[in-house]
Amino acid sequence: MNKLLIVGTVAFDAIETPFGKTDKILGGAATYIGLASNFFNVDAAVVSVVGEDFPKEYLDLLENKGVNIEGIEIVKGGKTFFWSGKYHNDLNSRDTLVTELNVLADFNPVVPQAYKNSDVVLLGNLHPIVQSGVLNQMSERPKLVVLDTMNFWMDCALPELLDVIKRVDVITINDEEARQLSGEYSLVKAAAKIHTMGPKYVVIKKGEHGALLFHNKDVFFAPALPLEEVFDPTGAGDTFAGGFAGYIAQSENISFSNLKNAIIYGSNLASFCVEKFGTERMENLDKNEVNARLKQFKALTQFEIELEE
Amino acid sequence: MNKLLIVGTVAFDAIETPFGKTDKILGGAATYIGLASNFFNVDAAVVSVVGEDFPKEYLDLLENKGVNIEGIEIVKGGKTFFWSGKYHNDLNSRDTLVTELNVLADFNPVVPQAYKNSDVVLLGNLHPIVQSGVLNQMSERPKLVVLDTMNFWMDCALPELLDVIKRVDVITINDEEARQLSGEYSLVKAAAKIHTMGPKYVVIKKGEHGALLFHNKDVFFAPALPLEEVFDPTGAGDTFAGGFAGYIAQSENISFSNLKNAIIYGSNLASFCVEKFGTERMENLDKNEVNARLKQFKALTQFEIELEE
Repeated sequence: MNKLLIVGTVAFDAIETPFGKTDKILGGAATYIGLASNFFNVDAAVVSVVGEDFPKEYLDLLENKGVNIEGIEIVKGGKTFFWSGKYHNDLNSRDTLVTELNVLADFNPVVPQAYKNSDVVLLGNLHPIVQSGVLNQMSERPKLVVLDTMNFWMDCALPELLDVIKRVDVITINDEEARQLSGEYSLVKAAAKIHTMGPKYVVIKKGEHGALLFHNKDVFFAPALPLEEVFDPTGAGDTFAGGFAGYIAQSENISFSNLKNAIIYGSNLASFCVEKFGTERMENLDKNEVNARLKQFKALTQFEIELEE
Repeated sequence: MNKLLIVGTVAFDAIETPFGKTDKILGGAATYIGLASNFFNVDAAVVSVVGEDFPKEYLDLLENKGVNIEGIEIVKGGKTFFWSGKYHNDLNSRDTLVTELNVLADFNPVVPQAYKNSDVVLLGNLHPIVQSGVLNQMSERPKLVVLDTMNFWMDCALPELLDVIKRVDVITINDEEARQLSGEYSLVKAAAKIHTMGPKYVVIKKGEHGALLFHNKDVFFAPALPLEEVFDPTGAGDTFAGGFAGYIAQSENISFSNLKNAIIYGSNLASFCVEKFGTERMENLDKNEVNARLKQFKALTQFEIELEE
């Protein structure tokens, strides 16, 4: 079984959407990625940090989903990273209400010995120095390194971000971030410029408008599934990245054609994530539902036109 | 050859985008639709009105593209409809600077005798009473009636709009208009509600984010082609509608599967329209370019995933 190493936050979230609000619930990029990886035949491990206040049942949940949690450090007397946000009525934008870094402020990731030779590494959205630190611990170059990041690091740690971007195969960012990173408005031009920074593959996430995969002159588009209700977008991007990386790790194939399938899988899993608050839907999702929705994705996008000569 | 009847404006436009500005040039929904219909084996005719100031070479252009212009009334001493707009930097929104209705204010469309039995009718964006007036002149129920409209008529002539919507098979509107017309934020729910108003098929145009085709529980998505440069979005929606209706008229097949192909063709043609100012690109486009781009649409969207059991 191929190994997938996941680095990212394991956290508390408090979420408010037009449909309701939660108390502190399980959140964090690595949590969503880990839950997504459970749908693939991979040996996944999370490297992260939590405080002593983090409930054991949350860690048990990840472990029960087959995620190795040896690399999740529990800081004695420490408090877990906490994020709180409120979504606007259209669910496409949100305000951050609270960000308490807590134990994340001094996070020094340690990759478990057994995962230093992981086949695929997914560097979830964290300080680029933490992301580089993980790559430095690998005993051999992974077959594929995927990096997720956000505008915050472009604003505050651009040189360090550019350093780690040089070392990865795939970058996943949203459309605004692609524009900011490249200085190009056209996403085609933005992707071309980001290619020159290192990543062979550029994935641009457009939320409800789907995701684009660029590889040199090739481009592929995975739509988001049109849904009757979007309940809570939190974690959709991480779930997308987790599905993407999980599919590649399972199939051990980093061709463009396989990466196309991977972003379809990522979109598929993300379409479930938004149906309930927080991780609830992903915790209770089964593989038959995922397969059924894959058929919906095919119906949504596949067509038969004979080309005229 | 099947007949396609096109009703809409033939006009002067003056356009400003971040890339430049034009004087009064050829514009109007029916112009773009007519130019798009030229890529299909159909007998297309335009019903519209212009003033005496309208250059003969513009009418010749349409005629040379195989569009019957017998139904374009030339009002003696009248002035042609004029629209002027300025696009914002992102090209996704624009301000209307000038709207001079001129001869359009008293437009009373007359369908030429030879087109009263048209197979497909495309009611371009005009006052819903004008749209109904055209349907009233048909000698038999067309195989397919497509209606394009906009928020302006929802604000100013909703009862008349609802009357004509009852009589059509396909409505094409943008996402915000679908929300306004239905009172539903989710596009899935909006389409379901619009179905109950009459149209069996609901096409929701999302500009650079593609278009959705709804038919009861079925949904299909055609992306917009990611382009290096978008020069001028004017007429893209009309070109899309023209490609859609032209493809259906040519193929004489109103199945869901054929309508999927039709929105791919519409997106294909629209992707050219935006590459130059006004109608320039569409005037000089040839069928080989369209076929080549169809291959790009296939590459952009088609994937092969084996479903696991």
